[in-house]
Amino acid sequence: MTHLKVTGLPAGTTLSEAFHAVRAHTVELVDGLSDADATVQSMPDASPAKWHLAHTTWFFETFVLDAQLPDYQPFDERFAFLFNSYYEGAGPRHARPRRGLLTRPSLSRVLDYRAHVDEAMAPLLARAASDLADLIILGLHHEQQHQELILTDILHLFAQNPLMPAYRPGEPLAVESSPIPQPSWCGFEGGIQQIGASDESFAFDCERPRHDVLLGNFELASRAVTNREWAAFIDEGGYDSAQLWLSDGFACVQQDNWDAPLYWDNRDGEWWSMTLRGPQPIDLDAPVCHISYFEADAFATWASARLPTEAEWEVAASTSGIDGNLRETGRLRPRPQRGEGLQGMFGDVWEWTVSAFLPYPGFAPLEGTVGEYNGKFMSGQMVLRGGSCATPAGHIRASYRNFFQPDKRWQFSGLRLARTV
Amino acid sequence: MTHLKVTGLPAGTTLSEAFHAVRAHTVELVDGLSDADATVQSMPDASPAKWHLAHTTWFFETFVLDAQLPDYQPFDERFAFLFNSYYEGAGPRHARPRRGLLTRPSLSRVLDYRAHVDEAMAPLLARAASDLADLIILGLHHEQQHQELILTDILHLFAQNPLMPAYRPGEPLAVESSPIPQPSWCGFEGGIQQIGASDESFAFDCERPRHDVLLGNFELASRAVTNREWAAFIDEGGYDSAQLWLSDGFACVQQDNWDAPLYWDNRDGEWWSMTLRGPQPIDLDAPVCHISYFEADAFATWASARLPTEAEWEVAASTSGIDGNLRETGRLRPRPQRGEGLQGMFGDVWEWTVSAFLPYPGFAPLEGTVGEYNGKFMSGQMVLRGGSCATPAGHIRASYRNFFQPDKRWQFSGLRLARTV
Amino acid sequence: MTHLKVTGLPAGTTLSEAFHAVRAHTVELVDGLSDADATVQSMPDASPAKWHLAHTTWFFETFVLDAQLPDYQPFDERFAFLFNSYYEGAGPRHARPRRGLLTRPSLSRVLDYRAHVDEAMAPLLARAASDLADLIILGLHHEQQHQELILTDILHLFAQNPLMPAYRPGEPLAVESSPIPQPSWCGFEGGIQQIGASDESFAFDCERPRHDVLLGNFELASRAVTNREWAAFIDEGGYDSAQLWLSDGFACVQQDNWDAPLYWDNRDGEWWSMTLRGPQPIDLDAPVCHISYFEADAFATWASARLPTEAEWEVAASTSGIDGNLRETGRLRPRPQRGEGLQGMFGDVWEWTVSAFLPYPGFAPLEGTVGEYNGKFMSGQMVLRGGSCATPAGHIRASYRNFFQPDKRWQFSGLRLARTV
Amino acid sequence: MTHLKVTGLPAGTTLSEAFHAVRAHTVELVDGLSDADATVQSMPDASPAKWHLAHTTWFFETFVLDAQLPDYQPFDERFAFLFNSYYEGAGPRHARPRRGLLTRPSLSRVLDYRAHVDEAMAPLLARAASDLADLIILGLHHEQQHQELILTDILHLFAQNPLMPAYRPGEPLAVESSPIPQPSWCGFEGGIQQIGASDESFAFDCERPRHDVLLGNFELASRAVTNREWAAFIDEGGYDSAQLWLSDGFACVQQDNWDAPLYWDNRDGEWWSMTLRGPQPIDLDAPVCHISYFEADAFATWASARLPTEAEWEVAASTSGIDGNLRETGRLRPRPQRGEGLQGMFGDVWEWTVSAFLPYPGFAPLEGTVGEYNGKFMSGQMVLRGGSCATPAGHIRASYRNFFQPDKRWQFSGLRLARTV
Repeated sequence: MTHLKVTGLPAGTTLSEAFHAVRAHTVELVDGLSDADATVQSMPDASPAKWHLAHTTWFFETFVLDAQLPDYQPFDERFAFLFNSYYEGAGPRHARPRRGLLTRPSLSRVLDYRAHVDEAMAPLLARAASDLADLIILGLHHEQQHQELILTDILHLFAQNPLMPAYRPGEPLAVESSPIPQPSWCGFEGGIQQIGASDESFAFDCERPRHDVLLGNFELASRAVTNREWAAFIDEGGYDSAQLWLSDGFACVQQDNWDAPLYWDNRDGEWWSMTLRGPQPIDLDAPVCHISYFEADAFATWASARLPTEAEWEVAASTSGIDGNLRETGRLRPRPQRGEGLQGMFGDVWEWTVSAFLPYPGFAPLEGTVGEYNGKFMSGQMVLRGGSCATPAGHIRASYRNFFQPDKRWQFSGLRLARTV
Repeated sequence: MTHLKVTGLPAGTTLSEAFHAVRAHTVELVDGLSDADATVQSMPDASPAKWHLAHTTWFFETFVLDAQLPDYQPFDERFAFLFNSYYEGAGPRHARPRRGLLTRPSLSRVLDYRAHVDEAMAPLLARAASDLADLIILGLHHEQQHQELILTDILHLFAQNPLMPAYRPGEPLAVESSPIPQPSWCGFEGGIQQIGASDESFAFDCERPRHDVLLGNFELASRAVTNREWAAFIDEGGYDSAQLWLSDGFACVQQDNWDAPLYWDNRDGEWWSMTLRGPQPIDLDAPVCHISYFEADAFATWASARLPTEAEWEVAASTSGIDGNLRETGRLRPRPQRGEGLQGMFGDVWEWTVSAFLPYPGFAPLEGTVGEYNGKFMSGQMVLRGGSCATPAGHIRASYRNFFQPDKRWQFSGLRLARTV
Repeated sequence: MTHLKVTGLPAGTTLSEAFHAVRAHTVELVDGLSDADATVQSMPDASPAKWHLAHTTWFFETFVLDAQLPDYQPFDERFAFLFNSYYEGAGPRHARPRRGLLTRPSLSRVLDYRAHVDEAMAPLLARAASDLADLIILGLHHEQQHQELILTDILHLFAQNPLMPAYRPGEPLAVESSPIPQPSWCGFEGGIQQIGASDESFAFDCERPRHDVLLGNFELASRAVTNREWAAFIDEGGYDSAQLWLSDGFACVQQDNWDAPLYWDNRDGEWWSMTLRGPQPIDLDAPVCHISYFEADAFATWASARLPTEAEWEVAASTSGIDGNLRETGRLRPRPQRGEGLQGMFGDVWEWTVSAFLPYPGFAPLEGTVGEYNGKFMSGQMVLRGGSCATPAGHIRASYRNFFQPDKRWQFSGLRLARTV
Repeated sequence: MTHLKVTGLPAGTTLSEAFHAVRAHTVELVDGLSDADATVQSMPDASPAKWHLAHTTWFFETFVLDAQLPDYQPFDERFAFLFNSYYEGAGPRHARPRRGLLTRPSLSRVLDYRAHVDEAMAPLLARAASDLADLIILGLHHEQQHQELILTDILHLFAQNPLMPAYRPGEPLAVESSPIPQPSWCGFEGGIQQIGASDESFAFDCERPRHDVLLGNFELASRAVTNREWAAFIDEGGYDSAQLWLSDGFACVQQDNWDAPLYWDNRDGEWWSMTLRGPQPIDLDAPVCHISYFEADAFATWASARLPTEAEWEVAASTSGIDGNLRETGRLRPRPQRGEGLQGMFGDVWEWTVSAFLPYPGFAPLEGTVGEYNGKFMSGQMVLRGGSCATPAGHIRASYRNFFQPDKRWQFSGLRLARTV
């Protein structure tokens, strides 16, 4: 069993402070959403905001309160069934594609559920010994994952609505006048390197164990691929050229009529995109976003380059500070990655890698039901790295492995080119 | 073109009074529904309550206000796209299965839309000449159809929720102690008879023209089939006996695992059913409800009888007053049909007939876009007659032809047996 | 129970002669087909020729030999499972969409199976008393239905093959130089008329009982709608005009991209069609063929006419001799219907009627398992009348009710216009 | 561009000899198949034997004859469309799931096509310079892949037939009396190792370049998992225990009702399996076969072990001779792997690895249309190693990477356990 680490807390923060900060932030995210906004499920991949609010609460109720407090009174016995996501060990559960049918409980009652659980947690937060603290910290990181999903799922929902509502005000976002220059190539030496999380601080089980990898010399582009570059790919027939694509990828192009990133809309020759701030003209200098692995891979082929492996990415990212356009900037969309050297490894867009999400050598899932978390998804998914403009700053790190199926596009996903020297 | 009739108004009622009464009742129906309840679409056949509220309003805005008032200002130009149901002549429209994705406009804004349109209608209601009055009356009957659908659709939605919320309080509904007796057979003489709506009062185009039909002698059961009789059908293996079923019907049984009417639930040997008043024990003496045509037909075969034709039903019903357990009783579920002679022809449950929904001889749809109404559905559907406990009293008549595909079960649909003498 | 009639035999023919004539003809139909041609199933609606050969044989083996000859030895015990179509009473059966997976038994073995059963039938044919003779005659008419299906199904199979093989040589079919004139309207008086089969000769159960119907005055077009007229419908945007179509019909147009009858192919502005004689230029004067009910209905609306009811059709057809371009002409495609008065009621193309396939008043299916034949299909299908160029001459009659779902197009189906006077 | 190698030929064999040996063997494989057997497609994943015969011929016609012989006359111009598999660069093609609709050309005509192409190849075989020889050798290896698929696809087809025909005679296969002992663990030292094909002899592009990998110490089981061990997994509830499975894997279990390997059938408590020799009792000591990656992974978890990576497998296999129960034994099913040390790395069953099929560092597809071969499938598939009882001996090597989606079961696929020391 991989051990969790209390040291996952920010410096100078108590467990109780961290708990309340994360929990409060989740509630802030639904500020401005109506009961209906928080209820509807726009596709099976997405979940209602209300469900995210309740499921993250169910985690603490099930794995902490029920397990630790013999006389804990559940807020509502039936919620255990409604808000389990996929933990087989935690009993039967409501089918995922039916999450959007739950008009009751209301958003307001779900917020009461959160308050009930938060209150019951108080004594435990004060006296949490190491193991329990680890579990609570796991719950907080779990909740931060759902914070990002609240944003991606509400964007997807609003994008289905012909009225195209804005989640947050659509104030003009400054667009710099000078086009961003060509990226440079940043070189990295190969040899035996280490990747994966050390035991010093919090990480998910799939980031462990830290282990040696053997890399060749490689180069990464100094910044992510931009919307301008993507528009050129479109103009040069990228979506029509079967030979650029993986076979399954071109099948998606044809079946789903892909001809631009998700949410792009051509208005009289100008590209617009639906965003969390409503429809906006594309910022041509910003990183392209809402593309699938298949699109990333085809673009890389078109550009005579390739995607990095996750090991290459991590080795390169270890030279950067964890800094960038993460959720705390409030921007909620990628911004141009300007500057010398390796830019924007963290934030803006998750970067697709050419690595399948598979176990590291010596991988062992967490023990017990909470271990049904990452390991069971180790088939059919590709790794993304680096976080996005929707990722909380305290949640991302160089070893962080995000993963999605190669046809998914509703995350803030982009790409950075790599090449072998 | 079939002419509408101003005489569709209740005696002693002005057009304006009728308009406001119908419109107000629709709003009463959503009383107690949350924004979320009114937004979610539980299956493609159903629509959100909010959509029903808006679509019935769109009818008046599009066909009356836009057409009659040159300076009418639409409440929101985009609603024409959102709330058109299927009128090709009225322009493009939002896809039906996506109605549940519209978290905006909110329920409250849709109610504002209704108020805006109602206000704009005021001058027209006062001075409506015959043709315009006819169109408005058509709109009111159209709205009454959607009133019933609001009830059937909200029941379906709530039945998907494991919490099984009640639309209206579930006070105990009195169950009489004495079991209902066997039905008697009421005989009717054949010969040339007339069915269909006369030109004297309002009717939908599909009820016209009134015309001669030739019938043999026939008998109808004095009441609808009861839950007790249906339970016996289940107990005797009705759902397992292929030879009782139409081929397409038995395919549904097998594919969708039908083993009882929709919403039935066997709790330790006792039958319960989800209702608009939440889960309730079945009243064994009340008419069976929420069955498909296929089930009705199989039951009739099992009972060595048959379903009536719509002509037989109408001829028989013409001898009854339009009276029964309609929506105005507030009961919201069928009640036992006790008494001598033909009982319950109106109200309680729609009764499936063996007649396909096809044009009457000489049928002509209404002219213009409002004619895209009944005629375009004249394939693949079976006729139901008599209204239900969810049908407004002023909306039903002996000539009324309701129609659904033979596998649909979410309406308040039951059956009455017939036989040839 | 409806009684079968020995009088179903052609005049001067013994049962044995009829049996051998029908059985031999089925085998002639597969002349020239390879084992592979006879094995593949091109869609779930169609069956392999080999299956038709075996299933019609299974009918005699199961309902006659097994039932009548105590010491009958089945050719292969396993065939009972393989070649039952849908008779629930005759035991479990191989799933319909999997019929094309049976590469074994081979065509040659199936022909041996036929010979085995034919031989075993010999003594019974000689001494068949009335009831048994009725059953055998039923089997022969059943086989003749499958003879037509062999032709429609092989055409469908060959049409899927880019090589477009010809079932029979494609010799030039004479096309008369003079275009066929406009059709005239043939009037019929209404009143009480009789339709349905009398008890004098063979008919299927669904054609009975003969009964009174009440008709208004009506007119039928003197001939079926031609390819030239259909091409005009296409040219005038018939397939693009939603208002002409039933709602379910236009959904088919959009989903399946219908823009012409099945098998039509526009080669540089000239219409060709795949036929049993390979690809052929359309004969513009011949009746249009391979259209669905939905298309027939839309055309009739476009032409300001309607389809006849099945009762109207039958009353009109009773004035014609059963004569026309049936299978025995060997033409295998419709021919122009020239001449004065009502032409082509029999043969060329099945004519869609506006009548749903429903029970006649007093209908009772045949008793026993052979009664699982027509009655179980009485939902969702429309009646066609008159036979086609693929129908055996001895098989058709004025009362004959063919039926298919309204979206089916692979039969030789066309239409004739009607109107109310 | 990776270079092909003439050295792919067996020692002492000319190109012409190799060509005729491989081509003749393909034809031998269809010996005993009827035209129908060779035509039907039992599922979209499989292809008809006839199609394999023609497609492998099309390869030589398209890439060699058309390209090299200016006056080459194609056998039939239309075959280019029919028998292209997925080479976008070689023009449009017949849709994969429709391959089974081609009853024409017949098997016999396809064999004529083969003879025509073989004859035209003769002069080229004699004078082939290096590049052309490489291309021809590629074609031969391509053909050998299809030889295996002919076997797996015909088994799948015959397994759909309730008659369960045998592809080859089902003579009793000797079963040794002594049960096979527990496997031992064979240890391998980690460090930097090399995998991938050298440039010395033929290999597919995806096997290149040969490159360093870093491995930890590991152990492999001395033999593959047996049917007896698999039966224990079943008995202990392996298929019911969600926690053993990848999430996508358990979804397959539930959706497709997996409860044993493909083709297994429990006859009164004894396991039988459909094989190329018809239904046979399971040999409990032989390797388990026809399992998916998902099943292999679940078994490994249940056995407290894991699957090897492809690098581990290759490093271990490099210590074995390429020897085993390959197709040339004629056994056509796995046999028990007895003996000391590492047994059965080649032959019997393909062994699933935990490695996704992804490009090696520095991978470059072959140039031109023949390069549309392996690279385009580098998503969503897992690597299998070692060949099976259906793999030609000359076709397999330690570096060979086979790949299928993780839910596929119709190949001869099994597993060998691994563990980290």
